Amino acid sequence: MDTAEFRRRGKEMVDYVADYLENIEKRQVYPDVEPGYLRSLIPEEAPEQPETYEDVVKDIERVVMPGITHWHSPYFFAYFPTANSFPAILADMLSGAIGCVGFSWAASPACTELETVMLDWLGKMLNLPEEFLAGTKGKGGGVIQGTASEATLVALLAARCRMVKRILSDDPERPEADIISKLVAYSSDQAHSSVERAGLIGGVRMRKIPSDSKFSVRGEALRKVLEEDKAAGLIPFYFCATLGTTPSCAFDYITEIGPICNTEGIWMHIDAAYAGSAFICPEFRPLLDGVEFADSFNFNPHKWLLVNFDCSTMWVKNRTDIIAAFKMDPLYLKHDHQESGIHTLHTHTHTHTHSICHWQIPLGRRFRSLKIWFVFRMYGLRGLQDHIRKHVALAKEFEALVRVDERFQISAEVVLGLVCFRLKGSNDLNEALLKRINSARRIHLVPCQLSGRFVLRFAVCARTTESRHVQEAWAHITQLATELLRQVRDHP
Amino acid sequence: MDTAEFRRRGKEMVDYVADYLENIEKRQVYPDVEPGYLRSLIPEEAPEQPETYEDVVKDIERVVMPGITHWHSPYFFAYFPTANSFPAILADMLSGAIGCVGFSWAASPACTELETVMLDWLGKMLNLPEEFLAGTKGKGGGVIQGTASEATLVALLAARCRMVKRILSDDPERPEADIISKLVAYSSDQAHSSVERAGLIGGVRMRKIPSDSKFSVRGEALRKVLEEDKAAGLIPFYFCATLGTTPSCAFDYITEIGPICNTEGIWMHIDAAYAGSAFICPEFRPLLDGVEFADSFNFNPHKWLLVNFDCSTMWVKNRTDIIAAFKMDPLYLKHDHQESGIHTLHTHTHTHTHSICHWQIPLGRRFRSLKIWFVFRMYGLRGLQDHIRKHVALAKEFEALVRVDERFQISAEVVLGLVCFRLKGSNDLNEALLKRINSARRIHLVPCQLSGRFVLRFAVCARTTESRHVQEAWAHITQLATELLRQVRDHP
Repeated sequence: MDTAEFRRRGKEMVDYVADYLENIEKRQVYPDVEPGYLRSLIPEEAPEQPETYEDVVKDIERVVMPGITHWHSPYFFAYFPTANSFPAILADMLSGAIGCVGFSWAASPACTELETVMLDWLGKMLNLPEEFLAGTKGKGGGVIQGTASEATLVALLAARCRMVKRILSDDPERPEADIISKLVAYSSDQAHSSVERAGLIGGVRMRKIPSDSKFSVRGEALRKVLEEDKAAGLIPFYFCATLGTTPSCAFDYITEIGPICNTEGIWMHIDAAYAGSAFICPEFRPLLDGVEFADSFNFNPHKWLLVNFDCSTMWVKNRTDIIAAFKMDPLYLKHDHQESGIHTLHTHTHTHTHSICHWQIPLGRRFRSLKIWFVFRMYGLRGLQDHIRKHVALAKEFEALVRVDERFQISAEVVLGLVCFRLKGSNDLNEALLKRINSARRIHLVPCQLSGRFVLRFAVCARTTESRHVQEAWAHITQLATELLRQVRDHP
Repeated sequence: MDTAEFRRRGKEMVDYVADYLENIEKRQVYPDVEPGYLRSLIPEEAPEQPETYEDVVKDIERVVMPGITHWHSPYFFAYFPTANSFPAILADMLSGAIGCVGFSWAASPACTELETVMLDWLGKMLNLPEEFLAGTKGKGGGVIQGTASEATLVALLAARCRMVKRILSDDPERPEADIISKLVAYSSDQAHSSVERAGLIGGVRMRKIPSDSKFSVRGEALRKVLEEDKAAGLIPFYFCATLGTTPSCAFDYITEIGPICNTEGIWMHIDAAYAGSAFICPEFRPLLDGVEFADSFNFNPHKWLLVNFDCSTMWVKNRTDIIAAFKMDPLYLKHDHQESGIHTLHTHTHTHTHSICHWQIPLGRRFRSLKIWFVFRMYGLRGLQDHIRKHVALAKEFEALVRVDERFQISAEVVLGLVCFRLKGSNDLNEALLKRINSARRIHLVPCQLSGRFVLRFAVCARTTESRHVQEAWAHITQLATELLRQVRDHP
């Protein structure tokens, strides 16, 4: 494919993308295929000779689309949203063409620098404490990770490194393996599975703190466990707080937990993967109160802030903590501006380099800040706030519908764009309802478990979801519920 | 931005991308900016109200381009290549529009399934042993990781988990922390920094095996270290072999190392990040002989196989090893086809799910196999082989030029697309030469260190590099060398 053909094919693809997104609600939101469907549709081996673009493109509808779960359909209410916007797609095209691998400042200065400034922009939009910003002379700063899982892991590894060093400075003879074997990390029993996984990777104990009746961890609950563990000779070092849990969008009490962590020398990381985007609205910002006690904070603009996947933004108060956990300096990554890199012109830090690769698991990285820049400028803060507010209003609308149908109950407080609900009745009944909903394929939901109960999650996801989709979804759910309840009554 | 505006702006962006790549050699390959250049060019905060697309787009040339290192310029000879092709850019546009997050089969069946089949296609192109393929009933299979660093880490974690389990099955009372404190991972002293980092993350000892005069690890060198370590009560568990080291593109002797690892129960991972792409050519495939002894194998199509970043392909012989190291199963990820997922229709494995998220650090993932599919079909195996062979021929052409100039010497065997060379003389002299080259900004190179010597690396990188660029680069280098040597002679 030469440049001339790319010009033609690229424009056709722009139209295909526009058509796809414009007409997405006409597509069945969840596919009919069975596992293994795709293998038989395409050859067993790559072609020896080139095929034409027509050959390839006609297979999009034949091979790919039948197996797509359409996350951007306004009938998709599963998981949490994943962002999709036109400015982000445009920025990603540019990023693909530039195709730089920004592992150091020299590898593409704009890639490192725009990222730092965009994280400052976003930090200001969230009204983060000054300490988390890079500015031109701060000790903190932000970085784009791929996913919240990586941020959770990076924070845990930095916390592990900080605690090991701290103990070794008091007791240089103590074997590192002994220290690590005594470390304990904590999170809510509602925390995302990736927190437990981070502990598994880091080779440390994990303990879950029981959440309260609203699925939130209170300071008292943490304190109780800490006392037990310290009495048993263990070393608490990391607490991963969740703001907006995956099952029910619950919020840990970081204003209570934070001071405890600070006193105990425990690293507090905040995982606000979904909810974080909402904090750009002043009315939701109080949910982030207590962030001043945190060592690191992370959320996913690729979920709810219209920046396409992947874009998980993470801030730390003291970037030397992160860098210490990862630093390696081979000659092929050295460059003239070694002292500068991501946070330029700092002379008062203890590190010799600020290349972003020292902040993350992978070495290479794409130019992801371009899509933040495009999206923030083309929507403006107002446009982004409108998007959040619209989704929250739609969730409240759905909640109101559920509340007036006395066969149903709301299972958790509706704070943002997620509604947890269920039929009054057994778990089996609710599982049967979900099965009917997802088999009908008109909308798509996933379940969660709250206090041992099987619960349906209704998350407002697509950028284009409107009131009519929510109303339609509810009419559909209630109709299926009516049929189910009739059938249960007639054939118990 | 509505769909109509996206159609217009998208097509303009296609033209911008085409223009950029068509005229890239007219741009200065390495930028002039100083650290911190960007912050002053843009506002300190995100705009409150939306800006127009014109505002945004005119800042590409004003703000971004002055700070870009142009990796796709034919005058870029630094690091290793990063891929960029039109079919991959088109596929990424589609992937962005679909915007699914493929963490499980149900989250988008096509995303999981196309990936599995593409990894089988590529495995066959490489003539990988059958055991590494998923097929319809194999125990192995492939997955796309973001980077080789992640693959190295995932393999190390799987190896750690396997060894701990093995020891616990013999001695269930032994504390896990005691086992982990005795584990040792190995790699060449030439291995990439990410291997050491994987050990740091995994909390295990790392030991570097001395490479020979050709910068390769021989079986004997490994055996010697193993004997020492076992005598000291340590537990060898992981060897990361490198095929195509970053400094000089050297190859470890995996036909010697592999059998030792197999006998000792050590997990052998092969990192062929750069060189792996070449193994699709029969004449280079012998470099992969010995892969049959490996537990896992990884290389980056995003380096040299025309699939844009990020796309790092990894195969394992026994996927239950990987899954065991990561598995978590919260309810919100459960789905009807739990038993199937990535490798469908298998009933003989011990795992309950094959969702790809159990193979990697992040949970979420983009639809990256689309770009493999587009690229392989539009180039065909032949087109991809031609690309590799062209680059190798250009490196040989450069080598020949160096060899006839008796002021220079070749510092390592030229096997693929990298030439390591230097002026006969001191490290300072060569460092001064590199400084002149990179200051002149006409071409861009990075150095490496080989046996204590400062060496210049000339890597053929861009898809569009031709003989004339190589000739021009050499003429430029020799001119700068002549000036330098004259100056040194006149002002010693």
